[in-house]
Amino acid sequence: MSAPWRGFASDNYAGIHPEVLEAITRANAGHAVAYGDDDETERLRGLVREHFGPQAEVFPVFNGTGANVVALQSMCRPWEAVICAESAHVNVDEGGAPEKVAGLKLLTVPTADGLLTPELIDIHDVRRGDVHRAQQAVVTITQSSELGTAYTVDQLGTLADHVHSLGLRLHLDGARLANAAASLGVALREITTDVGVDAVSFGGTKNGAMGAEAVIVLDGGLGHDIPFLRKSAMQLASKMRFVSAQLAALLTEDLWLRNASHANAMARRLEAAVRAIPGVEVMRRVDANAVFAVLPPAVTERLQRDYRFYTWDDHTGEVRWMCSWDTTPEDVDAFAAAIAREMGA
Amino acid sequence: MSAPWRGFASDNYAGIHPEVLEAITRANAGHAVAYGDDDETERLRGLVREHFGPQAEVFPVFNGTGANVVALQSMCRPWEAVICAESAHVNVDEGGAPEKVAGLKLLTVPTADGLLTPELIDIHDVRRGDVHRAQQAVVTITQSSELGTAYTVDQLGTLADHVHSLGLRLHLDGARLANAAASLGVALREITTDVGVDAVSFGGTKNGAMGAEAVIVLDGGLGHDIPFLRKSAMQLASKMRFVSAQLAALLTEDLWLRNASHANAMARRLEAAVRAIPGVEVMRRVDANAVFAVLPPAVTERLQRDYRFYTWDDHTGEVRWMCSWDTTPEDVDAFAAAIAREMGA
Amino acid sequence: MSAPWRGFASDNYAGIHPEVLEAITRANAGHAVAYGDDDETERLRGLVREHFGPQAEVFPVFNGTGANVVALQSMCRPWEAVICAESAHVNVDEGGAPEKVAGLKLLTVPTADGLLTPELIDIHDVRRGDVHRAQQAVVTITQSSELGTAYTVDQLGTLADHVHSLGLRLHLDGARLANAAASLGVALREITTDVGVDAVSFGGTKNGAMGAEAVIVLDGGLGHDIPFLRKSAMQLASKMRFVSAQLAALLTEDLWLRNASHANAMARRLEAAVRAIPGVEVMRRVDANAVFAVLPPAVTERLQRDYRFYTWDDHTGEVRWMCSWDTTPEDVDAFAAAIAREMGA
Amino acid sequence: MSAPWRGFASDNYAGIHPEVLEAITRANAGHAVAYGDDDETERLRGLVREHFGPQAEVFPVFNGTGANVVALQSMCRPWEAVICAESAHVNVDEGGAPEKVAGLKLLTVPTADGLLTPELIDIHDVRRGDVHRAQQAVVTITQSSELGTAYTVDQLGTLADHVHSLGLRLHLDGARLANAAASLGVALREITTDVGVDAVSFGGTKNGAMGAEAVIVLDGGLGHDIPFLRKSAMQLASKMRFVSAQLAALLTEDLWLRNASHANAMARRLEAAVRAIPGVEVMRRVDANAVFAVLPPAVTERLQRDYRFYTWDDHTGEVRWMCSWDTTPEDVDAFAAAIAREMGA
Repeated sequence: MSAPWRGFASDNYAGIHPEVLEAITRANAGHAVAYGDDDETERLRGLVREHFGPQAEVFPVFNGTGANVVALQSMCRPWEAVICAESAHVNVDEGGAPEKVAGLKLLTVPTADGLLTPELIDIHDVRRGDVHRAQQAVVTITQSSELGTAYTVDQLGTLADHVHSLGLRLHLDGARLANAAASLGVALREITTDVGVDAVSFGGTKNGAMGAEAVIVLDGGLGHDIPFLRKSAMQLASKMRFVSAQLAALLTEDLWLRNASHANAMARRLEAAVRAIPGVEVMRRVDANAVFAVLPPAVTERLQRDYRFYTWDDHTGEVRWMCSWDTTPEDVDAFAAAIAREMGA
Repeated sequence: MSAPWRGFASDNYAGIHPEVLEAITRANAGHAVAYGDDDETERLRGLVREHFGPQAEVFPVFNGTGANVVALQSMCRPWEAVICAESAHVNVDEGGAPEKVAGLKLLTVPTADGLLTPELIDIHDVRRGDVHRAQQAVVTITQSSELGTAYTVDQLGTLADHVHSLGLRLHLDGARLANAAASLGVALREITTDVGVDAVSFGGTKNGAMGAEAVIVLDGGLGHDIPFLRKSAMQLASKMRFVSAQLAALLTEDLWLRNASHANAMARRLEAAVRAIPGVEVMRRVDANAVFAVLPPAVTERLQRDYRFYTWDDHTGEVRWMCSWDTTPEDVDAFAAAIAREMGA
Repeated sequence: MSAPWRGFASDNYAGIHPEVLEAITRANAGHAVAYGDDDETERLRGLVREHFGPQAEVFPVFNGTGANVVALQSMCRPWEAVICAESAHVNVDEGGAPEKVAGLKLLTVPTADGLLTPELIDIHDVRRGDVHRAQQAVVTITQSSELGTAYTVDQLGTLADHVHSLGLRLHLDGARLANAAASLGVALREITTDVGVDAVSFGGTKNGAMGAEAVIVLDGGLGHDIPFLRKSAMQLASKMRFVSAQLAALLTEDLWLRNASHANAMARRLEAAVRAIPGVEVMRRVDANAVFAVLPPAVTERLQRDYRFYTWDDHTGEVRWMCSWDTTPEDVDAFAAAIAREMGA
Repeated sequence: MSAPWRGFASDNYAGIHPEVLEAITRANAGHAVAYGDDDETERLRGLVREHFGPQAEVFPVFNGTGANVVALQSMCRPWEAVICAESAHVNVDEGGAPEKVAGLKLLTVPTADGLLTPELIDIHDVRRGDVHRAQQAVVTITQSSELGTAYTVDQLGTLADHVHSLGLRLHLDGARLANAAASLGVALREITTDVGVDAVSFGGTKNGAMGAEAVIVLDGGLGHDIPFLRKSAMQLASKMRFVSAQLAALLTEDLWLRNASHANAMARRLEAAVRAIPGVEVMRRVDANAVFAVLPPAVTERLQRDYRFYTWDDHTGEVRWMCSWDTTPEDVDAFAAAIAREMGA
């Protein structure tokens, strides 16, 4: 695999968008104060206020797990807990970091499609004030979800209202926030600030950055603690200007939207192509840049000789195909042809 | 401060060395498997074996605090403790991350110059097997130290032998390992592998990278746990190829050495210049890229209007001047002239 | 409530059995070395070997949460996780202590009756070696369970074999181990050591002690770490002789069995009585000292004016009635009569 | 050592005072609500208000480490730190529990006699708001100290004022608070509430209890969190009535004072006797129930054949002799005679 290649395994297999790399290069002039008191981070703060509203505060971090844990810990006292979908990244893909780094208990609930509902949240809204139970304090949702689905604006508003009516806070894991906004055709603030989300893990890496995420705080009360939590969680970049420059590039001239729209379009193109192939069953709504399908395991195995992608569920044979900002129509068409070919074998 | 500027505050105020940025750019071709199964990381593994010996294993992480905590935790059971100098970065500049993230107790000892000795270590080699005491398991040293001093090869060998004779392990915080090796005129392995260091936090950021550090394991027994500890400590980069490419660039054609030698030379140039200024007292050996001096506070204040640098000790008026890979002789001379001018005022 | 009273809320509402109190009094002679190097603890060690086999090691602790967390942590590396029933005490009633104190992730699975099966365990036996997932290392079961049910000896053997075949360890939360053994008519070792349990949280408090639990290690490899984990988890008693004396009293002349058998008999008496009352539905097998029944909420409310007991599930109206070593037939009959009266109202 | 014996190793080698045991027995009537909603705990609350003032809230726990960690965590955000003497129990004898259970960083300072001063505290009052430093939030002092010394009322007042003037809180580790109050001839509140202490770890075990300590909160803002922190720190007793009864017994008819006064008197008697022995050097003020002396190691060794006591410092040969509520004048005289005899050898 030494020659450049492209697959459908993950949007973090893609590289750096040229405009992001250019921004890094541009930021590389002279000295800059470390740890965030630099021009690039200041510029990012302005861009975040533009996109998320005047009260939004941004705290760049290294990765999504870091963003989630810092954000969630800022909303929890040591004895408190976080309600999430069983399929949430924070539950299944963060190596136990929330428990280990922050001592957080996750209260999980199975979902049909990766999306929480008021009713599902209510399952865990019990035993308030009972010291024997880690007390629910936050609900975290993922938009777009780990299963490629997205909440509508209305669903988010209803959810946020419900969460707040229970005296809880709402966190949004936005590793793929851009894909959700692009898919819904809304601005970033319409699915965060405007619906009442309290804090966002804002993802840049999957959207074309080299490695840049941020906690964006929308509830003013939380901003004070984040710098301390970020440092003690080992998520404070010394040469922060280069992290900020990446995020700023994505928020400039709608690069976030161009990248996400393209990835989404590629996923829909792939969905359309494979729906036409007898025997391939697309399992979930394609609201963002992921297609989930069930294939015969033998077909999966043959396809994986040439194309990288993950089996999502060994029991059912469900696979996941992710499209990214650099997936081309030719990539999709060739892959769909290969699937058709292998299915026909 | 919107125009490019340079100061003496920290080597992480400097930007990215052009060869490092070029390496990032070169790594940006096509897709790459995330989380370390990529060509750049594979190449880095080879380079690390070249520089540190055939048994060396490398695990890139985001920052120095992350490297230190992951490395130290890999050497400690939950009830164990780490012996370090009171001035160690891990003790005074990591926001309590070792305690918070890994539950580690630090057993600190005051030092004259930031360097531990067998005798200082012995102070904490007490009460073995006593459950009431967090049990010492690791000694961590910093090379070059936070006070700009460096252990000699002999001192390191003696220290490592002593540490091992006590049944402990030796960790080396090498945020500025390059500066120490350059100053001593030795290869990297001569002050790590060859003297018996068990694990190293290898710093790239201050040496010209954008943001790249690594745990380098020299004791084969530790390598198994690091991947799990790195992930659960939120230090696993998804697009790892770009972190690895930075470290690989530093280890290619001796860029690490060129950068460190230059920074060290600039520090010595500054030292020589200020030693000639009556009333400026250089407090410590200049073994690497830092100069510590005592100035009248009023002079410090006036200088800081034009030059960024930190007051190290408010009580004594000691200040720290760091040189970096991009500090120029002109920078040094202008700064020394400014000091002379202000001292003469 | 200043006069002595008795209810059906919990077996830890009952006091100290006279033989236990007598043992405390007897242990109160002269000085004794603190922290476990005393005669009472030595005597306890012998009794535990008698009841659990010659390799059994005992480590007294303060409470059940302490026993569980210390035992589980002794079986887990920092990145590992524990498989348990959703209804497990460790999951729902320990205030998040496993996560907070030990950083453990719990992998929960819903059960019909509080009991795990090989199939249920298999749900979480996935993604071995994947750093993104907290790695399963231990299965914990509760015997008798939080729902009043008990595993048979055969079920335990099958479970232990399955757990071990997966390379995992088996922990048994035995807060009510005595009730299970009494109900099954077996010795303590028959449902622990002999079936292959690796470590037990052995409960004394609910069985007639004042406050005394212990970690009993059956897998020799674990014993070394427990003293350190116990201390750092704040579960090491200074005047340990008085904790040990309580446990020793329970293991002397089968006091554990007499107390548990009595409590179980009272539960069966209550079950029989309420099954005869139209409209009261007993929901679960009465394998130990708990009866779970569904009552009309209004009846529950009226009954709770005179009798303390807990509503187990607000949604279904299920209540829990616990019998203890000091519950009398008269207590049961009077309570059953009250239920009948209120149901008839 | 199967016959009752007495030594000078520790005040927790002594047993239960008869009035405490009687109180346990008296509390053992009928059922009581678990976890603190019982008559004994209610009675304790009244007694604590009597002794510590109307705003005092009491939270019984199992042991001193538990009291300290729960109290300190209630005063710290996750990134904050605790200033203490190097010799503090919390630093040297709690197995790293503050770091491990609560993630707290301890900022230690050497002292001459185990007592902090405003000047010593100031050493750590630096770098406010700097995220790289775990932020000081609490000062903890021990009264009477681990070295047998006690703060005067005036010293405490000055210290508390200083701590508060720095915006910090003051915690008092009162494992031997009774001995200090007895020695100073003051009420408990005069060295806690009245001087401005914010929270106390109140020790019962060394004062004649079987095993009973408590967090006593004097600053109203802290009381809300303690129940949750106590539970998640595994320090919540189910049959709490028996812990509370012990503490209540000590606070009834001045049992705490009688026990402490007696232990202190025995220590002074021992001090007087050994000061008369040539070659024995008493090293520290005997403000409470401990005598520290330097003996020839060979003498120590011979004495330890018949008497248990600890060598405090292997380097200097300093030993510690603790007296307890049950030490008799005859014990002291016989021990002093043995010392004289061995010194004469």
